[in-house]
Amino acid sequence: MDRDSLKRLLGEVAGGKTSVEEAFERLRKLPFEDTGYARIDHHRELRRGFPEVIFCEGKTAEQISGIATRIIGHGSDLLATRCSPEQFAAVSQSIDGAVYHEDGRLFAVKQSAPVERGSVAVVAGGTSDRPVSEEAALTAQYLGCRVERFYDVGVAGLHRLLSSWEEIKEADVIIVVAGMEGALASVVAGMADAPVIAVPTSIGYGASFGGLAALLTMLNSCAGGVTVVNIDNGFGAAYAAAVVCRRIYQDE
Amino acid sequence: MDRDSLKRLLGEVAGGKTSVEEAFERLRKLPFEDTGYARIDHHRELRRGFPEVIFCEGKTAEQISGIATRIIGHGSDLLATRCSPEQFAAVSQSIDGAVYHEDGRLFAVKQSAPVERGSVAVVAGGTSDRPVSEEAALTAQYLGCRVERFYDVGVAGLHRLLSSWEEIKEADVIIVVAGMEGALASVVAGMADAPVIAVPTSIGYGASFGGLAALLTMLNSCAGGVTVVNIDNGFGAAYAAAVVCRRIYQDE
Amino acid sequence: MDRDSLKRLLGEVAGGKTSVEEAFERLRKLPFEDTGYARIDHHRELRRGFPEVIFCEGKTAEQISGIATRIIGHGSDLLATRCSPEQFAAVSQSIDGAVYHEDGRLFAVKQSAPVERGSVAVVAGGTSDRPVSEEAALTAQYLGCRVERFYDVGVAGLHRLLSSWEEIKEADVIIVVAGMEGALASVVAGMADAPVIAVPTSIGYGASFGGLAALLTMLNSCAGGVTVVNIDNGFGAAYAAAVVCRRIYQDE
Amino acid sequence: MDRDSLKRLLGEVAGGKTSVEEAFERLRKLPFEDTGYARIDHHRELRRGFPEVIFCEGKTAEQISGIATRIIGHGSDLLATRCSPEQFAAVSQSIDGAVYHEDGRLFAVKQSAPVERGSVAVVAGGTSDRPVSEEAALTAQYLGCRVERFYDVGVAGLHRLLSSWEEIKEADVIIVVAGMEGALASVVAGMADAPVIAVPTSIGYGASFGGLAALLTMLNSCAGGVTVVNIDNGFGAAYAAAVVCRRIYQDE
Amino acid sequence: MDRDSLKRLLGEVAGGKTSVEEAFERLRKLPFEDTGYARIDHHRELRRGFPEVIFCEGKTAEQISGIATRIIGHGSDLLATRCSPEQFAAVSQSIDGAVYHEDGRLFAVKQSAPVERGSVAVVAGGTSDRPVSEEAALTAQYLGCRVERFYDVGVAGLHRLLSSWEEIKEADVIIVVAGMEGALASVVAGMADAPVIAVPTSIGYGASFGGLAALLTMLNSCAGGVTVVNIDNGFGAAYAAAVVCRRIYQDE
Amino acid sequence: MDRDSLKRLLGEVAGGKTSVEEAFERLRKLPFEDTGYARIDHHRELRRGFPEVIFCEGKTAEQISGIATRIIGHGSDLLATRCSPEQFAAVSQSIDGAVYHEDGRLFAVKQSAPVERGSVAVVAGGTSDRPVSEEAALTAQYLGCRVERFYDVGVAGLHRLLSSWEEIKEADVIIVVAGMEGALASVVAGMADAPVIAVPTSIGYGASFGGLAALLTMLNSCAGGVTVVNIDNGFGAAYAAAVVCRRIYQDE
Amino acid sequence: MDRDSLKRLLGEVAGGKTSVEEAFERLRKLPFEDTGYARIDHHRELRRGFPEVIFCEGKTAEQISGIATRIIGHGSDLLATRCSPEQFAAVSQSIDGAVYHEDGRLFAVKQSAPVERGSVAVVAGGTSDRPVSEEAALTAQYLGCRVERFYDVGVAGLHRLLSSWEEIKEADVIIVVAGMEGALASVVAGMADAPVIAVPTSIGYGASFGGLAALLTMLNSCAGGVTVVNIDNGFGAAYAAAVVCRRIYQDE
Amino acid sequence: MDRDSLKRLLGEVAGGKTSVEEAFERLRKLPFEDTGYARIDHHRELRRGFPEVIFCEGKTAEQISGIATRIIGHGSDLLATRCSPEQFAAVSQSIDGAVYHEDGRLFAVKQSAPVERGSVAVVAGGTSDRPVSEEAALTAQYLGCRVERFYDVGVAGLHRLLSSWEEIKEADVIIVVAGMEGALASVVAGMADAPVIAVPTSIGYGASFGGLAALLTMLNSCAGGVTVVNIDNGFGAAYAAAVVCRRIYQDE
Repeated sequence: MDRDSLKRLLGEVAGGKTSVEEAFERLRKLPFEDTGYARIDHHRELRRGFPEVIFCEGKTAEQISGIATRIIGHGSDLLATRCSPEQFAAVSQSIDGAVYHEDGRLFAVKQSAPVERGSVAVVAGGTSDRPVSEEAALTAQYLGCRVERFYDVGVAGLHRLLSSWEEIKEADVIIVVAGMEGALASVVAGMADAPVIAVPTSIGYGASFGGLAALLTMLNSCAGGVTVVNIDNGFGAAYAAAVVCRRIYQDE
Repeated sequence: MDRDSLKRLLGEVAGGKTSVEEAFERLRKLPFEDTGYARIDHHRELRRGFPEVIFCEGKTAEQISGIATRIIGHGSDLLATRCSPEQFAAVSQSIDGAVYHEDGRLFAVKQSAPVERGSVAVVAGGTSDRPVSEEAALTAQYLGCRVERFYDVGVAGLHRLLSSWEEIKEADVIIVVAGMEGALASVVAGMADAPVIAVPTSIGYGASFGGLAALLTMLNSCAGGVTVVNIDNGFGAAYAAAVVCRRIYQDE
Repeated sequence: MDRDSLKRLLGEVAGGKTSVEEAFERLRKLPFEDTGYARIDHHRELRRGFPEVIFCEGKTAEQISGIATRIIGHGSDLLATRCSPEQFAAVSQSIDGAVYHEDGRLFAVKQSAPVERGSVAVVAGGTSDRPVSEEAALTAQYLGCRVERFYDVGVAGLHRLLSSWEEIKEADVIIVVAGMEGALASVVAGMADAPVIAVPTSIGYGASFGGLAALLTMLNSCAGGVTVVNIDNGFGAAYAAAVVCRRIYQDE
Repeated sequence: MDRDSLKRLLGEVAGGKTSVEEAFERLRKLPFEDTGYARIDHHRELRRGFPEVIFCEGKTAEQISGIATRIIGHGSDLLATRCSPEQFAAVSQSIDGAVYHEDGRLFAVKQSAPVERGSVAVVAGGTSDRPVSEEAALTAQYLGCRVERFYDVGVAGLHRLLSSWEEIKEADVIIVVAGMEGALASVVAGMADAPVIAVPTSIGYGASFGGLAALLTMLNSCAGGVTVVNIDNGFGAAYAAAVVCRRIYQDE
Repeated sequence: MDRDSLKRLLGEVAGGKTSVEEAFERLRKLPFEDTGYARIDHHRELRRGFPEVIFCEGKTAEQISGIATRIIGHGSDLLATRCSPEQFAAVSQSIDGAVYHEDGRLFAVKQSAPVERGSVAVVAGGTSDRPVSEEAALTAQYLGCRVERFYDVGVAGLHRLLSSWEEIKEADVIIVVAGMEGALASVVAGMADAPVIAVPTSIGYGASFGGLAALLTMLNSCAGGVTVVNIDNGFGAAYAAAVVCRRIYQDE
Repeated sequence: MDRDSLKRLLGEVAGGKTSVEEAFERLRKLPFEDTGYARIDHHRELRRGFPEVIFCEGKTAEQISGIATRIIGHGSDLLATRCSPEQFAAVSQSIDGAVYHEDGRLFAVKQSAPVERGSVAVVAGGTSDRPVSEEAALTAQYLGCRVERFYDVGVAGLHRLLSSWEEIKEADVIIVVAGMEGALASVVAGMADAPVIAVPTSIGYGASFGGLAALLTMLNSCAGGVTVVNIDNGFGAAYAAAVVCRRIYQDE
Repeated sequence: MDRDSLKRLLGEVAGGKTSVEEAFERLRKLPFEDTGYARIDHHRELRRGFPEVIFCEGKTAEQISGIATRIIGHGSDLLATRCSPEQFAAVSQSIDGAVYHEDGRLFAVKQSAPVERGSVAVVAGGTSDRPVSEEAALTAQYLGCRVERFYDVGVAGLHRLLSSWEEIKEADVIIVVAGMEGALASVVAGMADAPVIAVPTSIGYGASFGGLAALLTMLNSCAGGVTVVNIDNGFGAAYAAAVVCRRIYQDE
Repeated sequence: MDRDSLKRLLGEVAGGKTSVEEAFERLRKLPFEDTGYARIDHHRELRRGFPEVIFCEGKTAEQISGIATRIIGHGSDLLATRCSPEQFAAVSQSIDGAVYHEDGRLFAVKQSAPVERGSVAVVAGGTSDRPVSEEAALTAQYLGCRVERFYDVGVAGLHRLLSSWEEIKEADVIIVVAGMEGALASVVAGMADAPVIAVPTSIGYGASFGGLAALLTMLNSCAGGVTVVNIDNGFGAAYAAAVVCRRIYQDE
C-alpha cells in the first residue's frame, strides 16, 4: 500500500464510502505488506538508481530467467552476479540486452539513463584475485560509480603500490581485494584518507583455510577506517562503496 | 622532510650551497622517513581534524602517560580508548584536561576548536552491549560527528526498532552494535539508505564463542551495504564512520 | 516379544507347560530384544502413524531397495530421504507405489489411511534454500501434518514476512529454513506464539563455512522459543514438528 | 497504537475531526511503533501468561533493579535468570516479593494467579550439570508447567535411565541436559514419544571445548524428534518447552 | 531384579502364588531397572575389583562427601579424582581412611585386599605434565596395576627415552603423556610391542590451543597401536590400561 | 645388524681379524641402522606374526606394486589398506595371491601359517559406516584375531544392541564404529568389561564436520575404558585391538 | 629512479637546467616508485642470483605464458611453481628452454651461469609427501643450493632416520617435510646443529584436517631451532633455506 | 658411551679382558643411552656455546631452583625463560649470579667467556608486543648475537619502518614480532635480503583469537623467506636466529 493508496483509503473513510470497521481491517492487515513493499521498491527505482540484483549461484536457469524477465519487464535495471558462463549461455537468449562479463562472472541489463556518482579505486594483490576484483569493479560501475583498477599491487613489492598512490588516493572509496595473508588492506588504510573496504579472497592454500587467514587479518587491521565484507564478496564491497558515494553526491 | 624542506634543499643545490653528492645522500636516506612522517602528521593535524589515538589495553600507566603528554605537548587532540578506571586513576593527574567516560572506557583531551561533520546513529541490541556502543558513540563524537544513540533495539522486539526508524534513517552513517546472534545488522541494512557498519560484540555465552557467532552473522548478511569490523571494536566502527562523514562534508 | 507373547509364556509357566528354568533362559535373553523391538515398532505402527524412514545418502541402490521392500512388505508406510534422482531411478522399479519428489530429494510409499494432525508453516529465506525447505515440507506432510509454504521471505526485505504473518501465525509449529546469516529465525520467533524450529542451511559462501554461520546465529537467538536442528536437516525439523503436532492432537 | 486507538483515529477521520493529511502522517509513522508494541505486550500479558524476563549476566545491579521495578509496577510477573548470589544480594531489597533460587541462579516475582499447562521432564546426566538443569526446571515452573526432575541419569549407567522411564515418558516435553559427550539426548529420543529438547552444557574439560562436543553430538543425533538450544541455555529449553505446552493446552 | 529374584517370581507364578497378570506387570516394568542395576554393580564389586570413582571438579564438598560416605558404607573402594587441596581439606574429616595425593590431585579409600594384575609404564615428556602423569600413575595403581614412571623423556632429547627403553618395553601397557607437540606417542609406539595409550595434555601456549595440537598429533600418529583419550585425561588412560591388564590376567 | 652379526663382529675383534679402529667405525655408524632395522623386522616376522602394511591412498600403482613385490619376496605377509578398486585393478596382475575385499577397501597376501589369538567384536551404528567397519574387521582378521560383526546397532534403537549383548561381551576387545553423533561408544563402554576402541567415522552432514562431532563425542565419553583413534581409521583400531589380543595370548 | 638518475637530476638542478619547482614535482612523485622498483629488481638480478618466480595455480595459460616471456626477455632466470602437467603442456611451446619436473610440479628456465652456495637436506616422512618434498628440493636447486634428499624417513621407524644421520647433519639447512602427525621435525631438530625449516603437508585424513595437525605439531615443537612455513609450501621452505645459504656464503 | 669409551671397550675385547658375550650385552643396551647422551651434551658444551634453557611456566620454585643449580654446578651457562617476577623472587637467593630481566620475563647466569657471532634485528609492531620482543632480543643476546631493537614500527605508519631500514637491513637475521593482523612480517620480508623469522603475538582482541590471526597472516605471507614460530614464542625465534648466525660465523 503506497502513499496514494493510503490517502485514497482515508479519503474513502472521510467520504463515507468505506466504513471505519472495514478500513480498520484493511489497515490492520496491510500496512506491513504493501506500504513496506512500495516504499522499498520505490526507493530503489526512483531515488537509489540502483539496479535489482540476482545472486545466480545455486539457482537454475529457469529461476534466473524468470526473475530477470520480471525485473526487466518493470523497466528496472538488472545486475546478476555469480553467473557462470554455462548459466549465462542458458539464459542469454531469453533476456534482451544482457551484457556478460566473464572476468567478473556477472551480467547486466541497463535500461535507465546513466548516472555517475563518485569514484571507487579497486586495489588488488594478485592475478588470481581477478574474478573477485572484477566483480567489485563491475558492480561499482553498474551502481553508478567511476572505477579505477589497480591490480597486482601486493605488499611483497611495496613500490608498485606507492607508484600508483597519487591516483589511488583521489578515489572517494578504496576497495582492497587480497587473498593469502591479506596485509594489503592495512598498508593501504595506513596511508589513505578515504574509507577503505576490504575484501578477503579465498585465494591461497594450506593455512589460508579458504580465505579465513585474509579475513582475520583484515578484521584485525590496526589501521583506522578499514571495514570488511565476506570472503570473495566483491559485490558486497562495491555495493557498500556505492552507498557511500551516493551519500557524498546525494544533493548533486 | 616536508614540502618546504625539500624545496629548500633543492634551492641550496641550485645555489651551490649544497653539493650534488651531499644532496643525493640526504635525499636517498630521507624521503621515506621525514617526508612520509610529515605528510601523515600534517594530514592529521591540518586536514583530518582527527585526534591522535592511544589504545590503552596492555599498556602501563607510565607508557600511557608518556605518550599522552607528548601528543598534548604538540597541541594535538587526544583520544585514549580501552582505558580501565584503574588505568585512568593512575594517569589522570599527569594529563591536564582529560575527560574520562567510564561507560565507553575512554578519555579524551580536546584542544582544537570543535567541528561537526555529519551524523552517526549508533543502534544497539541490548543493555550488555553498552560498553562497546558507548566506545563507538563517544569516539564518533570526538572525531567530529553528531551522534544519536538508539539502544536496546533488538530483533526479538522489532517494534522498538521500527518506532525509532524515522530518526535512525536521517543519519549519514549507521553503526549497528549487536552480540548474541547479531541479526540486527541485516534487519537495519534491509531498510536503510545510509552505509551500515556492523560491530559484533563478545556478549553472549556458549555457542556465541566470544562474538564469533555475531561476527559470522554480520559477514554473511544478505542485506546490501553492510561492512563489518572486529569483535567489540566500537572504536574502529566509529573511525570508519567518521572517515565517511569527512568525505561527505569535506568541502564545507 | 510383545505383550501377548509375554503373557502366553507366563501362562505356559503357570500351566506347567514350560519349566521355570526354561522360561528364565528365554526371559533373560529376550526382554531387551523382542519386547523392545515390538514396543517400538508397535508404537510406530499403531499409535504414531509415522512411516519408517530410510536415509539414502551413502547407501547403495541394493541396500535402499532391500530395506524398502522389507518395510513395505510389513504393510508400513515408507519415507526415503536424501535420495538423488540417480538413486531413485535405480530403485523405482523394485518399489511399488513409490512417489518421488525431486525438489525435496525424497520418495514415499503410502499404504495407511491418511490422517491429519496439526499444521506446520515452513518459512524459508531464499530460492537456494528450496531443497531443504521442501525436504521439511514434504516430510511434515508424510508425517500427517497440513503444511503451508512461505518461501523467499528474507530479513533483508522484512515486508514480505510481515505481509504473510497472519497466515504464518496460525500454524501449530513454524519451521524456519535459512542460510547465509540465518537471522530469519530470530525475527520470526520474536513475533510468534507457536514453537519455532530453525534449520540452518549450507547455502552461502566464504565465512558461511558450510552453514556454520547460520547454525551459530540460530543457537544464539535471543528470541524465546527457538530450537535448532543440524545444518540442512529439513527432515529432522519436520519430524520434531510432527511429534509436537501429535502431542497437541493426540486425543482427537 | 492498539485496536481502540486505531478505530478512534479512523472515527475522527470519518467524523471530520482529523484531516486525511494529518491521519496519513500519524498512520505512516505509527503503525510499526505502537500497534506493534501493544500487540506484543498484550499477548504476553493477556494470553501468554508468561512473565517478563531479565538476563542478568553483564548487567549492573542498578540496571537489573531498574528494569525489574518497572515490570513489577505494571503488574507483570518477573523472571530474572543468570543472577549470581552477589547480584541478588545487591537488588533484593529494592524488589518486593522476589524469591531467589541459588541452584538455578534465578529469582522470580509472581503476581498473577497460578496456572498449570502441561508437564516437563528434566533429565540430566550428572551432578555438575545441576545449575543448568535447575535453570531449566525452575524456568519451566515459572512459565506454568508441572516439572519432574530426573538427575544423575547418564548413558554410562543406562539402568538408571531405564528404571525411571515409566515416569519420564509421561511428560509432554522432555528436556535433556548433558555435558561431556552429550549422548544422553540420543538415547532418550530413541525411546520417547514426546518432543525432546536437548541442552548441551559446558561441563567437561579438554576436548569438550566448553560444550562444543556435547552441542555437536546433539545436533547430529540420529534419533528423530530432537531439537537443540545453545550451550548452558537451560532457560531457552524451558521457554521452548513451555511454548509447546501452551499449544497443547491452549483451549483448556 | 537379579537372577534369584527372577527365578523366585517365576516360581511364584508356577506355584500359583502370583497371577500371570501381576507377574506381567512386574516384569514389564522391572527388567531394565533392577536386573540391569544388579548386574552392573555386581560386576564392579565381585569381579572387576575396581573402586567406585568420583570426579570432584565442579562438585561441592557436600556432594563429594555425601557420595563418598555412601560408597564406603557399602564396603567398596573409592577413588576421587580432580580433587583440589581445598576440596580435600573440606571433606577429609568426614571420610575415614582417605589418602590424598596432591601431585595427582586425587584421594582414595582402600578397603579391599590388594591385587596386582599387570604392569603399566607411564612415560611423560616434561616436568609440567606431572599432574596428568601422576593422575594416570596413581589411578592405575589403585586399579590394581604395578606402575613404573618414566618422566621427563621428551622427543627433543631422544637419548633419555632410548636409555630407559629396556624397562619401558617390559610393561603390559604403555601410557604416554605429552603436551606441546605430543610427538612422543608416535616415537614410543614405533618401537613398542605393547598397547600404547596416549594422553595429550593442555601444557603449552599459543598454537597448542589448550592441548588441541597434542591431541591432533596423537590421533594422526602413523605408528600402529596408538589409541588416544581426552586432553588431560590421565584417569581415562589408566582406566583403559587397567581394563586391558585385567583381560590379560583374568584367569590368574 | 642383528644379534648374530654383532656377536660375529665382536668375535672377529677378539680373534684379531678386525682391528679395533675398523670395528669402531662399523659400530658407530650402524647400531641405529641395522640393529634397529633387524630388531623391528625380526619382531614382526618371528614374534608378532603381523603382516607388513601399505597405505595405498595417494600412492601410484607403480609405488604400490613395487613395495608389495619387495615385501612378498621376503616371504612376509602383506596387508594393503585404502586401496580403491581402480588401484587394485592396476596392481593385481603383478601381485601373486592378492585377495581383494571391496567392502573394506583392502587387499592381502597371506604366506604364513594361520594363527588365531583372541577375538574382536566390531559393533557399528549404521549401514553407511560399513567401509570403515569392514576395514576394521578384515584388518583384525589378517592380524590374527577371530572377528564377530554386529552392524546396524545404533543408539536410536537400543534394543538391537541389547539383544546382541551376550555375544558382544564375549570378545577380548570391542571396536565401536560410529558416525553422526558417535554416542554408541559410550553406551557400549558403560556395559562392557572388555577394552573398547572407538572409531569415529566421517559419515554425516552439516555439523558433523567430517567426523569431528563423533570424534569429540568419543573423546569426551564419560564411560570408563574407551580409547579413540582417528576419524575413519578402522585399520588403526584393529591394529591396536590385535596388539592387545597378542598380549593376552602371548604365552600360548 | 635509480642512483644515477637521481644524481643526474640533482646535477641538472645544480647546473640550472631544471628548475627547483620542476625537480620538486618529479621528486615528490617518484621516489617511492622508481627508486624502489630499481632497487628491488637490481638486487634480484645482480646480487641475489635468484630467479623470478611465478605461482601458476589459479592462473590461465595465457597469463603464465605472458609473464614468463617478459621475464625471460629481460634475461632473468625463471621458476614457475604449482604448474600442473596440463598447464605446462599449454605453455611449453611458447617458452624456450623450459624444463618441467612433474614430481615437483614446477618448470624452470635457466639463463645465468650456475652458482652453488650452501647445501640443503630435504628429509621427508612418507611416499605421499613426495610432491611437496620435490617442490622444496628442486626449488632449492634452482636457487643455487646443493640438495640431498632423504625420503621415507618417518618417526614410526626411527632407525632409518638415524642411519642417514651422518649425512643429514652435514647440510647447512635441513628442510623437514611431514604430514599426518608431523612429529619428524621435532625429532630431527632435537639432534641437529643446523637450522631446521619444517613444512607440514596436507597428507592424511580425518583429524589431520588438511594439514592442520602437522602444522600445529611443528609450531609447538619443543626442540629449539625449528621454524615453520605454510602447509604444503615446499617452495617457501626452500626459498628461506636459500636465503640462509646465501648469507653463509655471501662473501665467497 | 662416547668415542673413547667405545674404543676402550673394543680394546678390552681385543685384549681378552672382556668376553664377547659381556661386550655384546653392554653394547646392546648402551649405544642409544650413553653415546647419545654424551654426543648431544658435548655438542652443547664445547661447540654450540649455547646455554642450557629452563622453561619456567608451570614449574614450581623448587623445580626451577633444582634444575638451575644442577646446570650451574656443571659450569654451564643458564637461560630461564617465562619466569614471572614472583617466580624469580622465590628462586633468586638460591641461584648465584642470576640476572633478571622483567621486560623479557627471563633470567640468566653467564659463566663462559662472551662470544659474538652475528647480528639480529628485532622489529616489533607495538608497545604491547614488548614482552615477546624482549624475550626474543635478550635470548638472542644470551645466545651470542649482537641485537638491535626497532620497536613500535607498525604497518599502519609505514614511514617509521622505512626510516630505520638502512640499519635493519644490516642484520644477519631479522626477527619480526607482531600481533593484531601481523602484516609487518610480509612488508619486512618484501624488502629484506636476510632471513626473516616471524613471531605472532597474542596481543589483540576479538577476532585475533589469541594470536591466531597474526599466525595465519604470517604463514600465508606471499613474501619469500619468511618462516614462523609459535604464538608469543620470542625464545624460539631467537634460538632459530642464533642457530643461523652460528652457521654463518662457524669458522671464525
